[in-house]
Amino acid sequence: MDYIEYIRKLDYQELERFASEIRRYIINVVSKNGGHLAPNLGVVELTLSLYRVFNPYEDYIIWDTGHQTYVHKLLTGRWDLFPTIRKFDGLSGYTNIFESEYDRFGAGHVGTAIAAALGIEKALELKGKKANVVVVIGDGALTSGESLEALNQIKTLNSKLKIIVNNNSMSISKNVGALSHFLEKLRTSKFYLDTKKTMKRAFSKGFEEELKKIRDALKVTLTGEDFFEGLGLKHFGPIDGHNFKELEDEFRRIKDYDYPTVVTVNTVKGKGFKNSESNPEKFHSASKFDISSGTFLKEKGIISYSEAFGRTLSKLAEKDDKIIVITAAMKSGTGLKEFSEKFPKRFFDLGITEQMCVTFAGGLATIGMKPVFAVYSTFLQRAFDQIIHDIALQRLPIIFAIDRAGVVGEDGPTHHGVFDIAYLRMIPNIKIYAPKDVQDLMNTLYTLLNTKLGGPVAIRYPRDYEFGDFEELCDKINMVDVDKWKLLNEGKDVAIISTGFPTKAALKVARKNNFTLVFARSIKPIDVEMLKWVFENHNVVFSVEEGVKIGGFGEGLLSYGNVEVIAIDDEFVPHGSRKELLKYLNLDVEGIERRMRKVLERRNIYENANRIR
Amino acid sequence: MDYIEYIRKLDYQELERFASEIRRYIINVVSKNGGHLAPNLGVVELTLSLYRVFNPYEDYIIWDTGHQTYVHKLLTGRWDLFPTIRKFDGLSGYTNIFESEYDRFGAGHVGTAIAAALGIEKALELKGKKANVVVVIGDGALTSGESLEALNQIKTLNSKLKIIVNNNSMSISKNVGALSHFLEKLRTSKFYLDTKKTMKRAFSKGFEEELKKIRDALKVTLTGEDFFEGLGLKHFGPIDGHNFKELEDEFRRIKDYDYPTVVTVNTVKGKGFKNSESNPEKFHSASKFDISSGTFLKEKGIISYSEAFGRTLSKLAEKDDKIIVITAAMKSGTGLKEFSEKFPKRFFDLGITEQMCVTFAGGLATIGMKPVFAVYSTFLQRAFDQIIHDIALQRLPIIFAIDRAGVVGEDGPTHHGVFDIAYLRMIPNIKIYAPKDVQDLMNTLYTLLNTKLGGPVAIRYPRDYEFGDFEELCDKINMVDVDKWKLLNEGKDVAIISTGFPTKAALKVARKNNFTLVFARSIKPIDVEMLKWVFENHNVVFSVEEGVKIGGFGEGLLSYGNVEVIAIDDEFVPHGSRKELLKYLNLDVEGIERRMRKVLERRNIYENANRIR
Repeated sequence: MDYIEYIRKLDYQELERFASEIRRYIINVVSKNGGHLAPNLGVVELTLSLYRVFNPYEDYIIWDTGHQTYVHKLLTGRWDLFPTIRKFDGLSGYTNIFESEYDRFGAGHVGTAIAAALGIEKALELKGKKANVVVVIGDGALTSGESLEALNQIKTLNSKLKIIVNNNSMSISKNVGALSHFLEKLRTSKFYLDTKKTMKRAFSKGFEEELKKIRDALKVTLTGEDFFEGLGLKHFGPIDGHNFKELEDEFRRIKDYDYPTVVTVNTVKGKGFKNSESNPEKFHSASKFDISSGTFLKEKGIISYSEAFGRTLSKLAEKDDKIIVITAAMKSGTGLKEFSEKFPKRFFDLGITEQMCVTFAGGLATIGMKPVFAVYSTFLQRAFDQIIHDIALQRLPIIFAIDRAGVVGEDGPTHHGVFDIAYLRMIPNIKIYAPKDVQDLMNTLYTLLNTKLGGPVAIRYPRDYEFGDFEELCDKINMVDVDKWKLLNEGKDVAIISTGFPTKAALKVARKNNFTLVFARSIKPIDVEMLKWVFENHNVVFSVEEGVKIGGFGEGLLSYGNVEVIAIDDEFVPHGSRKELLKYLNLDVEGIERRMRKVLERRNIYENANRIR
Repeated sequence: MDYIEYIRKLDYQELERFASEIRRYIINVVSKNGGHLAPNLGVVELTLSLYRVFNPYEDYIIWDTGHQTYVHKLLTGRWDLFPTIRKFDGLSGYTNIFESEYDRFGAGHVGTAIAAALGIEKALELKGKKANVVVVIGDGALTSGESLEALNQIKTLNSKLKIIVNNNSMSISKNVGALSHFLEKLRTSKFYLDTKKTMKRAFSKGFEEELKKIRDALKVTLTGEDFFEGLGLKHFGPIDGHNFKELEDEFRRIKDYDYPTVVTVNTVKGKGFKNSESNPEKFHSASKFDISSGTFLKEKGIISYSEAFGRTLSKLAEKDDKIIVITAAMKSGTGLKEFSEKFPKRFFDLGITEQMCVTFAGGLATIGMKPVFAVYSTFLQRAFDQIIHDIALQRLPIIFAIDRAGVVGEDGPTHHGVFDIAYLRMIPNIKIYAPKDVQDLMNTLYTLLNTKLGGPVAIRYPRDYEFGDFEELCDKINMVDVDKWKLLNEGKDVAIISTGFPTKAALKVARKNNFTLVFARSIKPIDVEMLKWVFENHNVVFSVEEGVKIGGFGEGLLSYGNVEVIAIDDEFVPHGSRKELLKYLNLDVEGIERRMRKVLERRNIYENANRIR
């Protein structure tokens, strides 16, 4: 069935009913598969209206970030496949050009759509092909450097791009500037500053605030000037993102319009489902849940790496007022809710600005602070240059707390944090640690924040959890010799050097087969003494890591001696549950064992191979 | 002598004289050492005035990019050392925190200053330390994503940052938006569109243009609204950047000001030296020159890699209208002047927006174009995430033309292009080539643009040149089997596998000592067949590359067999001439030979060691 044709025949009442049907379908599937529930419930009317006016088969609709494209997917040929979304071998949770040609540009990271759309528009122009190019982008994504770079170039490129801003938090409006040049000139003159001081003393601060509000209100009313206009774009709205008629009228109007245009559409995140409407943050990216109660189906008595990280930091910050925490719009994801509430002055959420976050942390460090930047591995890729140029080159003591290192699961290839070992290891002056469990993460953090650092350090840990209790783990927290590798099992002939999360699996393999297991928390520097001991006392040495093989930890060991590297091969990892993916990558117990057996067989060390049962 | 104290005692006439003295000194030194002449001549009055009002020893003045800090360096304790600037072991051509504590934050890349300054300001606040925080930034640097990210956060951070925009091209003003919301609403209504069409037909296009100009003029006069105001900052100026009184008055005024503030200062790039004033682009980053004639002291009959790249592309584009070229404000540097003039519609200079450039190229590729992004190796670091997420993951056929790969010389550690092999090699679906000479670069480019690419490719080449004539090289251009390694010298016992520029040096060593030399143009994929042959027929195998060892080409060979890797050790490379640096890194003929001898001696292959004379 061609849903695009279908929706164009409906009247507004029928559309309302279809919207409800779509919502029920999405809620039902996401309650089973997990996914970005609230963002998608928010854009049902927006998508339907957009596709009644523009044509996704002929026009080029580019969805920024792509996590709000469930409706788009349903309408463009994936209605029946939708129940497979985010499952291994199923539909992607984001736009994906290999899944459908109407996913015009794939994206899981924010801020790429405007740049891509401009490229598409210019190519169509050069080919003499006529089509509308439309971007749908969330207000949060507009804070990213790439969005801003591209917005700033639209005018110069003589583009006619249409940008729909899905605005669900008014964060853009807040950025709108204020007063007239005339008033400012006046206010900054010595005369005005003096007068203001006098008035302030006379009337208290409240008066000045009131004056400011009135002035701002007047300003907006009179000129309608705002951020987008300042960049030379036409800006309309805000319009009601759940009103079919209003949406359609506005979309039809800009369709014929000869200028680059922004339309702000106000939507309610989580619309149409009481649980997500009342708590959209909780349901932004939801795990499986019970539809009627809205409760997540989670195991009890667990502690995630993120939670342990955030709560340990809170504990340490109580006694150390130099600890400052920075996040790029990932407060909850990185476990920093408690910290942000306890230490609001030492907590900075700078929006989706990874580049800025890193340099900002650098600035803090030059004044003697201890900045911790908590960030997902995949997003830190955005600040690669800043890590080199601003931090490592200047030997600034920043702690990069790299969450979601390794495979992340259902979010898939755009989100896997598999490159960080490789992209950090090449940088001089940096140290990289990968704790083996939650307690070890806490110990490492505790140690590093009580050590005078000579340069940047990175701690990587996975999107995973353990059974355990934070307070109990806290009681056992202690300083560790972070740069020293540790012998966890002394075996015979065969040794495994393992870093990070897979160490637990590797240890099982080692114990079962009487292999040596060395835990390398420190990826850089290498514990050369221990490495030498390993080479001298074993015939075959394996390395295990949850990261790409090329440029990774194991490859780095090769210049010291022959190592069989167990890591992620040279391909993008698909989506699926973490368990499925670790199995797919042969990084679970069975996989590690299987790969070792293969190597031992290939190297004709039959005796060893046979030892693996 | 304390120059800060000194300049505060001068009257305006004496200041003028001192400014002339500084200019003479800078011109004199740069004519011998090379350097950023025009940018520094443009900020003499700006710096002197700024340091009469703010105090570089107590306040925090952060210079973006740092290439315009020669005056700053002269005034803050480096007058006598200035003749060593950009020389090996001499002063840096940029700000450098290890050189002076008054270089508050080092920078060679653009756009980091605002983010760093905000971090510094917040840290000072938390410490209860009172000081002014001032950023000086060029208008070009404001186009970069990091600048824009940080500008957009200033208001939210309750900052009082003072930003001096050194505006020498009016590019900011051009971005200022136009009309009132009321007028826009009217214009886009069907009624207005119809009316406009009628009027257009009636009055010709000229009338509409005139109307627009009047409206824009009115708008700016009435409201003074602009880009910065749209972000909630106060914006003053433009003021005359060569008028001491005007500069000082404005700086004094904002010093007491309680809001985040931008002051635009109009300067003339290259001011006070007739040659640079009339041709500021030529003297932006100058090589050694003759002061009286303003001519560069360059060798005759040479062709640089950049020139060969750009001119080859022009030739190929004549017959292939799918070739599109993108640059991030590096038109001349990457040799694209000719292309931009011959094919203006297929040439995109998007400003300093490496992130956007990469995704924009991705957009072009989805519509079947052949985008070539010409970029310096060090600046491509900014788009690392986009290369992974937008290009490689989607297998888009972009050509990354990576200029300045390897050590760049006098610009030093912020600019060396030594990481690209490592940061690209880890990415799935990408191919990386490093031609050995200019002809080979042309052949590789020719081949790739005549091949159906299944994904992105990178070609890396150095900031270097050869004696030769472009047309002659053009006559010899031919298709090459890019993925195949080539045996250039068949020797005995010892083999060298060399990639890129150092291949010439390695070949000399090989011929002299009867070693095998294999040229690996293709860094990825590896020519496994040839590699196998090398391992099977030689006792010792060396690899040679001009890039970091960790994660580099040689390390990648190690999983195939034992290789002695000759590359750049794990440290940031200092500044100096390319010749000095290649010597320092042991990547010239003598260095390669010395390192090989050491290895051969260490491995007790005395016979081989003795073979090196």
